[in-house]
Amino acid sequence: MYLSKFIEDAVNELSKLPGVGKKTAFRYVLHLLDLPEQGITNLTNSIKSLKTNAKRCQTCNVINDMDTCSICQNPKRDIKKICIVENLKDLLAIEQTNQYFGLYHVLDGVISPLEGIGPSDLSIDLLEKRILDEAPMELIMALNPTIEGDTTIFYLTKKFSQPHIQISIISRGIAFGSELDYTDSLTLGRSIEARQPYQNMISN
Amino acid sequence: MYLSKFIEDAVNELSKLPGVGKKTAFRYVLHLLDLPEQGITNLTNSIKSLKTNAKRCQTCNVINDMDTCSICQNPKRDIKKICIVENLKDLLAIEQTNQYFGLYHVLDGVISPLEGIGPSDLSIDLLEKRILDEAPMELIMALNPTIEGDTTIFYLTKKFSQPHIQISIISRGIAFGSELDYTDSLTLGRSIEARQPYQNMISN
Repeated sequence: MYLSKFIEDAVNELSKLPGVGKKTAFRYVLHLLDLPEQGITNLTNSIKSLKTNAKRCQTCNVINDMDTCSICQNPKRDIKKICIVENLKDLLAIEQTNQYFGLYHVLDGVISPLEGIGPSDLSIDLLEKRILDEAPMELIMALNPTIEGDTTIFYLTKKFSQPHIQISIISRGIAFGSELDYTDSLTLGRSIEARQPYQNMISN
Repeated sequence: MYLSKFIEDAVNELSKLPGVGKKTAFRYVLHLLDLPEQGITNLTNSIKSLKTNAKRCQTCNVINDMDTCSICQNPKRDIKKICIVENLKDLLAIEQTNQYFGLYHVLDGVISPLEGIGPSDLSIDLLEKRILDEAPMELIMALNPTIEGDTTIFYLTKKFSQPHIQISIISRGIAFGSELDYTDSLTLGRSIEARQPYQNMISN
């Protein structure tokens, strides 16, 4: 089909990337064929380095270059708050808001009975140890608003419910810039249920 | 920004792929971090193999695994027809129609004064040698209908115009399934100019 087994192999490998079909993979291959030797080496080395050098932070479990990540090392962060996220992507999304200055804990997934992922597959033991060691005052649940996310929040809340720990959940509702008539009725219904006094909003 | 220099490097390298931005590249990186060692090795080896093993067919200049590609080697192909294409992608698009059984010649680009690509940058010398050696009866110009494509067709037609060689060009006009009122007026105007007797159409 491609006149070349090597092109076919590369197309097959590249089409395993998320959201990449054979046509896009072939486009990538044509680009790679045009690259100088050095460009190919840079690309393949950077891919290999990922696997070789990526480490988990021993404290918060995030993927980074060190045994303790730069967030956990930062003395300016509020160590009394731990924000619980599913993965690195969600952590970075929260970091980009520049609104949160506490620590994180990366679960590395959510509880999903359908996919056979239970609490023991997530970094919950590490979180438990942390809560004992660090005695945080607040656990912020920042998981995606899905059935799996909600199940995980329910599990963690039951497990870590203690009088001196406040457990909170990031607010859900209509996103800024969205329109009510295009919002799904579950979100809209919940946002009416969870309505807040307007005075609270403007005082924040 | 990514908590890891290695992730940042990989994002930068992957975002050099055509149509890939930082966000998509980061998505690829997260996928790669989840892959087992073997998956990474397969991917990087297949990318390296491309550069190491890709050869140009000595006859038609197409990228493939051998000195003579499978099309030029195929005794069933009509050696009296040479279809001139810009690159491998266009060649494969024509092959997939299952309507053409002659040979090809891959120019490896088109004449583009703006990008500083002249005739000497394309495999026109090889084509000239081929025309002398193989004495084809027809040259089919299958270049993209752009200014550069048309310039290249004009150049090749002047260069290879000989009484015993028919030079033809793939037909242009309204694509099947498209609508007249959405067709650009250049295409529509030309398709009226280039109208054909209906009897010719149904006899084909």
